[in-house]
Amino acid sequence: MTMAHSAPTAAPVLPSRGRLRPLGLDEVRITGGFWAERQSVNAAASLGHIAHWLEREGWIRNFDLIATGELAGERRGREFSDSEVYKFLEAMAWEIGRTGDLELESRFRAVVTRVARAQDADGYLNTKFGHPGQPPRWSDLQWGHELYCVGHLLQAAVARARTRPDADDGLVAIARRAADNVCETFGPDGIDGLCGHPEIEAALVEFARTTGDDRYLGQAALFVDRRGTGRLGDVEWGREYFQDETPVREATVLRGHAVRANYLAAGAVDVAAETDDPGLMKAVRDQWRNTVARRTYITGGQGSRHQDEAFGEDWVLPADRAYSETCAGVGSVMLAWRLLLASGDSGYADLIERTLFNVVSTSPAADGRQFYYTNTLHRRELGTVPDGDRPSIRAAAAGRAPWFEVSCCPTNVARTLASLAAYVATTDDEGLQIHQYVPGTIVHRPVDGPERRVTLTTAYPEDGQIRVRIDSDDDRPWTLSLRVPGWADQGATVTIDGETRPAAPGYATERRSWRRGDEVVLSLPLAPRFTYPDARIDAVRGCVAVERGPLVFAVESVDLSGGGNVDELLVDTRQPPMVAGGRVVVCCRRLDPSDHHWPYAGGEAASATATRGDLLEVPLIAYHAWANRGPSTMRVWIPTI
Amino acid sequence: MTMAHSAPTAAPVLPSRGRLRPLGLDEVRITGGFWAERQSVNAAASLGHIAHWLEREGWIRNFDLIATGELAGERRGREFSDSEVYKFLEAMAWEIGRTGDLELESRFRAVVTRVARAQDADGYLNTKFGHPGQPPRWSDLQWGHELYCVGHLLQAAVARARTRPDADDGLVAIARRAADNVCETFGPDGIDGLCGHPEIEAALVEFARTTGDDRYLGQAALFVDRRGTGRLGDVEWGREYFQDETPVREATVLRGHAVRANYLAAGAVDVAAETDDPGLMKAVRDQWRNTVARRTYITGGQGSRHQDEAFGEDWVLPADRAYSETCAGVGSVMLAWRLLLASGDSGYADLIERTLFNVVSTSPAADGRQFYYTNTLHRRELGTVPDGDRPSIRAAAAGRAPWFEVSCCPTNVARTLASLAAYVATTDDEGLQIHQYVPGTIVHRPVDGPERRVTLTTAYPEDGQIRVRIDSDDDRPWTLSLRVPGWADQGATVTIDGETRPAAPGYATERRSWRRGDEVVLSLPLAPRFTYPDARIDAVRGCVAVERGPLVFAVESVDLSGGGNVDELLVDTRQPPMVAGGRVVVCCRRLDPSDHHWPYAGGEAASATATRGDLLEVPLIAYHAWANRGPSTMRVWIPTI
Repeated sequence: MTMAHSAPTAAPVLPSRGRLRPLGLDEVRITGGFWAERQSVNAAASLGHIAHWLEREGWIRNFDLIATGELAGERRGREFSDSEVYKFLEAMAWEIGRTGDLELESRFRAVVTRVARAQDADGYLNTKFGHPGQPPRWSDLQWGHELYCVGHLLQAAVARARTRPDADDGLVAIARRAADNVCETFGPDGIDGLCGHPEIEAALVEFARTTGDDRYLGQAALFVDRRGTGRLGDVEWGREYFQDETPVREATVLRGHAVRANYLAAGAVDVAAETDDPGLMKAVRDQWRNTVARRTYITGGQGSRHQDEAFGEDWVLPADRAYSETCAGVGSVMLAWRLLLASGDSGYADLIERTLFNVVSTSPAADGRQFYYTNTLHRRELGTVPDGDRPSIRAAAAGRAPWFEVSCCPTNVARTLASLAAYVATTDDEGLQIHQYVPGTIVHRPVDGPERRVTLTTAYPEDGQIRVRIDSDDDRPWTLSLRVPGWADQGATVTIDGETRPAAPGYATERRSWRRGDEVVLSLPLAPRFTYPDARIDAVRGCVAVERGPLVFAVESVDLSGGGNVDELLVDTRQPPMVAGGRVVVCCRRLDPSDHHWPYAGGEAASATATRGDLLEVPLIAYHAWANRGPSTMRVWIPTI
Repeated sequence: MTMAHSAPTAAPVLPSRGRLRPLGLDEVRITGGFWAERQSVNAAASLGHIAHWLEREGWIRNFDLIATGELAGERRGREFSDSEVYKFLEAMAWEIGRTGDLELESRFRAVVTRVARAQDADGYLNTKFGHPGQPPRWSDLQWGHELYCVGHLLQAAVARARTRPDADDGLVAIARRAADNVCETFGPDGIDGLCGHPEIEAALVEFARTTGDDRYLGQAALFVDRRGTGRLGDVEWGREYFQDETPVREATVLRGHAVRANYLAAGAVDVAAETDDPGLMKAVRDQWRNTVARRTYITGGQGSRHQDEAFGEDWVLPADRAYSETCAGVGSVMLAWRLLLASGDSGYADLIERTLFNVVSTSPAADGRQFYYTNTLHRRELGTVPDGDRPSIRAAAAGRAPWFEVSCCPTNVARTLASLAAYVATTDDEGLQIHQYVPGTIVHRPVDGPERRVTLTTAYPEDGQIRVRIDSDDDRPWTLSLRVPGWADQGATVTIDGETRPAAPGYATERRSWRRGDEVVLSLPLAPRFTYPDARIDAVRGCVAVERGPLVFAVESVDLSGGGNVDELLVDTRQPPMVAGGRVVVCCRRLDPSDHHWPYAGGEAASATATRGDLLEVPLIAYHAWANRGPSTMRVWIPTI
């Protein structure tokens, strides 16, 4: 049923059925602009930075010490540190697939060799459990992360198999032995357990897709079915922390730890797709819909609670305590992409765009060597910029940090950026769909027809015009579909052959026998706009945000003359936001609050927003770019006058 | 300098100098009403309930096992479980002082005997550290809570010494040996350290006041001075978690863990009072003022963050994620009471009243056998009521729980309720001050004059009239001072000899040669009122709360006809809140929100508050009484139309 692709597509997710089929890194190239810049920084700075910290913290050396038997008991790094090495391998695999970097290829092989030596004879591979002086294998399913680590090993192997199918480095064989060990240990006759952190589920399905061995799919389905039955036991934050309080098929919304929730849902979609299980697929689609409607920040960020890195209840979306973990953003992209492939609905691509621009790209600093773990929407105090030469022990640090004690985000950003071209376009029997707009090229050879070549030219998201030029001929008609984002519900147009027509959110399609030189121009309205929150979101009642295209904007204190306080601004919504001097600008007044000994009082005067001074023109900054100019305060949601 | 009182006042805090002097349990009796009812439940149910759980969880038995040498390594309870036994002893000591309960006296002695046997020869007393198989003494000052536990032991001994000065149970001697051990270990030539959880500071000062030995005061001053210098090292939540990032004298606001912050500040006031250190006193008064003005909930609750049980930054006061730990409320009362004694400013008594009525009395269920650890101001989901037969592992459980893995709150409530009469009234050279209104009697014998007897008659807070009758004669004039709460800024009056005059917030005073039968009537305005938040509190912008007298009110779902949703109510503030059918009632409309796939949209319509149906009269409930009628949702702050 799941079949190994003889000529694998170099993409992270390859369902054997579904509405759309992905195009890989070998078919889509990003040649410039916003994302190419970030891919360059990722390749030139972040990957080396990650390698440096993995060595410095001893997380790769743990594998050496296991191999030599020197690691007895105490080791460096948290229980899941192996997974960072695997995510680094995955990022390198995609990057090698993207650019063919030979120096990176040799670094990749060196790490694989060190990992290989730590594998036990029966395939078990983990540096924290199961060796002399360590706790026994699988002795802490709640927190041990052993299956989670195997999952990331498999994902690295999948990335390698799809980008360098003939490589002799041995990573796929290592992964296969580890996956076999998991199936033997946790199969129908094995330990009736599951991992506290989902990840193995999606990984096993991809591994099944890559190897053609359905045994891995069966094991993934078993893990999905076991969850929600209380097998993991209780923890301080409740069983919903790891989604073990309600079976996947019965849950109606994502809840608990936001990364775990998204990874699990992604794995469930994979299982549903491969086993043709519409009930399971529908359950996850419903969960996604409710989560996006009631539990997602305007940035696409997810997770409202610091305590357990978790979703809050419906409408609990505090700006100042937004956790919005970078990895939850990555997980949300993973989930939405799978649902997009399954359904073809543009709403999934809308969320991917929003999350990439406003969460994933917010995490790394401009230099690619510091990262946000959480992505608040409101910083009230300047705080202290983390030490650039020490791992931060605080995930919610006041600024980007070079590394963390739990350092899941840097490697997650790296693997996402390196594989980003695979999220741009898809194909189906009718033609080609373009979901994300980048300057780039698409080359696709359908099984039954001539090659299709397309060139995208755009300065998006700085400019709303996207030129799609066809560079190949085809006598048979095919459909070109261009996503019109949900935010572009007023004024989007498509121009073909000099004729312009309005385009509604969804996909603007054109079917014809395309000729070399044909051009379609999509114009998206990029005037900055005020965005209002649903009346049920208590945390930002009476506020507006400003958006322009897919970008969320923010006011940052470094842009206020005289070191103004972002918390004293009231925006005058009678003046629409505008672009002036290259900046998005809004008109504000300053709050003139009286100071009381007690902040609650009778009479509306207590909460009245008296203002002082003249109307100010306040420049905003794209949210993803904030906190690159020294300590600052910031807010996305601004109270209205 | 600090002197043991030859006839000790039975009160928790006995400064040797300051503006006011407390009256003890032997001088003030609460004879009925709101607090007498809670004291009865505390005595009849809570103390036995606590005893049951302390035995069931093995926290008293830990002392037995240390005594017999059977406790090697692993033990039951968290590292601070000894302190719960001590707080239970303290609660019993006050209760015995209050009522003379003989059965309780014998239970008290039995526990003291078991504690005594666990004390090491050199005075060290702890069941978690320092014995075979355990970590060494003082090996984990950051988290070990050893000094914290000694602090609570001293407080228990102080309570005992002040209520039964001639008792032969030995508790004071045990405490003295433990305190001496602390001084020897942590004195100027000892370990240059301090405890991760403040408590020893205030306790040592009280112990100095009780024993007359200034050595304990010196040690307390040393601990206060050491804090804020980074000696404790860093933790995930930053050094401000235990107030170790800024010296007490330099800090401007309470921050970090809210219980730690209040306990530390209370200890610093004690040190400042005894060492006559106006700089230290002013620092804490400023911290208190800023904390109350910007970091305190309308209930008096403190702590905005679940993650680290901590204060948030200024204006971070989310209703739905209010932590407002019961023990932080107790700590806040401890601090405000000390500042009141030092200064005589009524604002401190105002906060005590608010916190007692809306935090401390909210924690216990009506039956006294279940407790809130945290006190949210907004519950959105019904949640699951905790198992009544299991300790809750979640401090922030959806309902009151019988016990917690960290079970600091039940014993803290118990010791506060048992000693509550000591917070009602004070004396000074001029006369008598009444700070809290209860039906009761006050009997005070000044050193240089005849006994003063006063009877208080009131149904407060149900009724605003408080009759103060003088039951003794005195030829020399003295001043009777009655606190007029800050909330009673419109319409409070005092009536004497048939003459009524307005009374402004602060203290209404009357000086005369009082005769038996003289009567003063204070009338406080008890019409329910709307209260608005400062414009800078983002979390409740556009909302009002309803208060009546010192009580904060809430809407609870069980009061909505047809199982309405508290999150769909919009209050019409043009209709003042009223009392109807014995309930406080407000007029509301129901929100009629459209459901969108994405909760952010252009145009104000997105956040407009369309309503449906007729104007509803919605009954409210006193916040302290909520969650006693089955699972419910609740909110204190209600959006306005």
